[in-house]
Amino acid sequence: MRKNDIKPWVLRYEDVEEFYCSADVVICGYGGAGASAALEARRAGADVLVLERASGGGGATAMSSCEMYLGGSGGTAVQKALGLEDSTENMIAYLSECFGPNGDAEKIRLYAQGAAAHFDWAESLGVPYKREAIYERAVEPFGDESLLFTGNERAYPFNRVATPIPRGHVPSREGNQGGKVFMQALMARVEAEGVRVQADARVTALLQDDAGRVRGAVVKIEGRECAVEATRGVILSAGGFVMNSDMVADHAAHVLPYATPYGSPGDLGDGIQMGIAAGGNTVNMSEVFLSLAIYPPAKLTHGILVNAQGQRFINEDAYLARLAHYAVQQERQEVYLLVQNEDYEPSLYMERLRIAGTGDTIAEVEAEAQLPEGSLQATVAYFNRHAQQGEDPLFHKAPEWLKPLDKPPFALVSYCPREVKYPMGNERGYVMFTLGGLETLPTGEVLTAGGAVIPGLYAAGRTSAGLPRTASGYASGMSVGDATFFGRLAGKQAATR
Amino acid sequence: MRKNDIKPWVLRYEDVEEFYCSADVVICGYGGAGASAALEARRAGADVLVLERASGGGGATAMSSCEMYLGGSGGTAVQKALGLEDSTENMIAYLSECFGPNGDAEKIRLYAQGAAAHFDWAESLGVPYKREAIYERAVEPFGDESLLFTGNERAYPFNRVATPIPRGHVPSREGNQGGKVFMQALMARVEAEGVRVQADARVTALLQDDAGRVRGAVVKIEGRECAVEATRGVILSAGGFVMNSDMVADHAAHVLPYATPYGSPGDLGDGIQMGIAAGGNTVNMSEVFLSLAIYPPAKLTHGILVNAQGQRFINEDAYLARLAHYAVQQERQEVYLLVQNEDYEPSLYMERLRIAGTGDTIAEVEAEAQLPEGSLQATVAYFNRHAQQGEDPLFHKAPEWLKPLDKPPFALVSYCPREVKYPMGNERGYVMFTLGGLETLPTGEVLTAGGAVIPGLYAAGRTSAGLPRTASGYASGMSVGDATFFGRLAGKQAATR
Repeated sequence: MRKNDIKPWVLRYEDVEEFYCSADVVICGYGGAGASAALEARRAGADVLVLERASGGGGATAMSSCEMYLGGSGGTAVQKALGLEDSTENMIAYLSECFGPNGDAEKIRLYAQGAAAHFDWAESLGVPYKREAIYERAVEPFGDESLLFTGNERAYPFNRVATPIPRGHVPSREGNQGGKVFMQALMARVEAEGVRVQADARVTALLQDDAGRVRGAVVKIEGRECAVEATRGVILSAGGFVMNSDMVADHAAHVLPYATPYGSPGDLGDGIQMGIAAGGNTVNMSEVFLSLAIYPPAKLTHGILVNAQGQRFINEDAYLARLAHYAVQQERQEVYLLVQNEDYEPSLYMERLRIAGTGDTIAEVEAEAQLPEGSLQATVAYFNRHAQQGEDPLFHKAPEWLKPLDKPPFALVSYCPREVKYPMGNERGYVMFTLGGLETLPTGEVLTAGGAVIPGLYAAGRTSAGLPRTASGYASGMSVGDATFFGRLAGKQAATR
Repeated sequence: MRKNDIKPWVLRYEDVEEFYCSADVVICGYGGAGASAALEARRAGADVLVLERASGGGGATAMSSCEMYLGGSGGTAVQKALGLEDSTENMIAYLSECFGPNGDAEKIRLYAQGAAAHFDWAESLGVPYKREAIYERAVEPFGDESLLFTGNERAYPFNRVATPIPRGHVPSREGNQGGKVFMQALMARVEAEGVRVQADARVTALLQDDAGRVRGAVVKIEGRECAVEATRGVILSAGGFVMNSDMVADHAAHVLPYATPYGSPGDLGDGIQMGIAAGGNTVNMSEVFLSLAIYPPAKLTHGILVNAQGQRFINEDAYLARLAHYAVQQERQEVYLLVQNEDYEPSLYMERLRIAGTGDTIAEVEAEAQLPEGSLQATVAYFNRHAQQGEDPLFHKAPEWLKPLDKPPFALVSYCPREVKYPMGNERGYVMFTLGGLETLPTGEVLTAGGAVIPGLYAAGRTSAGLPRTASGYASGMSVGDATFFGRLAGKQAATR
């Protein structure tokens, strides 16, 4: 096979002299999206081959707690068992508010319509879900509960357009090993049902014919590149590009001063590059998930977040990604939490944070932190005056989190992105992963910039631009929910050419 | 020639049966970048053919006032004549601050080193430049001066890292017809020196050989598609993509709620799509120029910009694109200018603006505008207290613009992006154009994602990602300066294969 430096990611199908092997459906990447696609393609009758770069499957899903953001259709089995009623319309209203102009209305609709049934599918794999919920402000359960609020449902402005209901579904297992539990169950089923899986097999190029149809891939196994034929289709489920610093700089340079990558080592953007080379369009490439985890513990939410001007800029009861989204948009990308003694505890997800100032008066804190004289004092005076009445006229933090900051001592904790360190980030900065990729139909079919379907080519998971589109509207569970849900659709579609 | 829906933007050179014509260098697009490239390629000895989609040349440069952001090297001829000394290091320091992580250090360096000589080139075309400057806060001269401040040079934080000097160079002509004057002079020279120009000729695809070299283009003339051979290279100078609403939605969906396109009708992204199809990488696609033109008149700068929380968010003496950049990042994308009677006049560049509130006290204004009770009052009290001492501890607005807002009546003018209308915008919103495109070397050579040069392919102007990279660091004159400067480099490089 002939490769050149200019178009290394795609080769002419017509030039292939010999195929190493053949399958109906070839899947590049064995994480949540790829495994879900494999199972559905197999169940639709296809002969399926999964190629995985690493020595074993799992991808970013296995690294996660495997939350899935699910609801609608009257409620999932867990929601219903707990007496919670969710409607598809309510879920659509919420998701539409989450992503605004970045959202994909068709994916939102199909996801909301199918999410409750998707839960049944996940449970049918043998993944344990307990009919128990926690209702406190958290990101993951602390015990073995399987349902919680994981986004902005109870926060302004989302609580004005949709009825809050918990939709974060987590495998019931202490220690947040949900991703491993889920992927083990899913991969066991995939392999039991006859899917062929080849690990240590890096896909390096697509094979495309002169009419534009994708008909296979080139894979490197034991140092040798060989051609694999796909008679029905190729599914790209090779993750996002957060571990490819060049791609991050090209498409989201703005994050470089304040974010640190979080993902699977394989999130190098190969799948996206192959899709582009085959004629695929990319969308939403500049958007990333970000995290500013002031909580848990939830009680820190009683504090107020301020910028370098000592001003508030967002309701502090928003989800951690929304907090980060607005934090980094502040002119100096500095952000601090002012908290009084009775609410203070270290943030659970962040390594030891710098205390920028302490004091028995706000003036003392302000002076020690070198905030502009009088700025924090004015902010607190205004906040306290209204908090006493259970109101936040500026940002509409919910009444349960409103109380005057009047019980000294006070502390001002730095959550400045250049200073913080997360255990899972490589460097200082807010942890992030990418939310852009190949443009696809909900069936996973990859589109050109002109809107044509590339025959034989599919994408799912973070190789595609899926359900979650911005940090400002993200909720825990949206990525795994999206990857597995639309991974399944792609598998079905690819199998039934 | 065989075209398919999947890869319409590039065809196999090997499949061409007959060429309509041939040239050493083929240039797609006859705006500022294309015309500059054509002249230099011709002067380097190449036979040059320019293909222009419209019925005549000019592009977005002809629509502009043709400001060019120039300086360094001790000063341009205009700067020197006025006794102003500029250094290359000072210009590099300024431009580096402008674009931060989005900037291209190598382009910044070469541009700063060559900008003064570039002025001499522009003047040598016969374009009139008067050795006169205006020093007031403006975007274009009101008279026939040829030099002015056009960016954030005198504003925080730029004034802390570089010595302010005016660098906006404009052809001397009343009425801001600079772009027409310049393009007429440039195109006359291009054609006098023997460049062939074909108007009404839309390039629809590149011709690329199997080794990856670009060797021509397909052009539609009088309804017929024909192949044109380029023995040395093809230069894509077909503008940006601001007029392609699908591409804007794909790469910069965030702007949809608040921006309105401003550009040449040909800014449809064709050049970028052709470059991608040939293997080219894109960078910076989500960044746009934006305008929030509170000034001129300059005296409105004495007012304060506030958001929906009645809080300031930026120093009001910043350039109009920087004001817009921060305005749209506010949580509710609402922004108002509070101004007292003696400073009030309508903004020159915006159609009649809504007055959100008026009154003899700030409390009255705040109530009429339905800002949160007490919010604007607290902001003004804080601002006034420090302005009296010539200080702005929050945002460091320069002392010349600081005076207390204490002379009623007051007005709060809405510059909310959803409400404003610019004469040149299609709809309500801040006018914008795109700042992303093909990744190029300073020589215009287009790069792949892997960093390889695509032989025979060049890009310049807004088809490439050039000097200006963000609204937050933009200055008037950076686009035309970039397009003509790097257009010339691309022309030279393409001619000397």
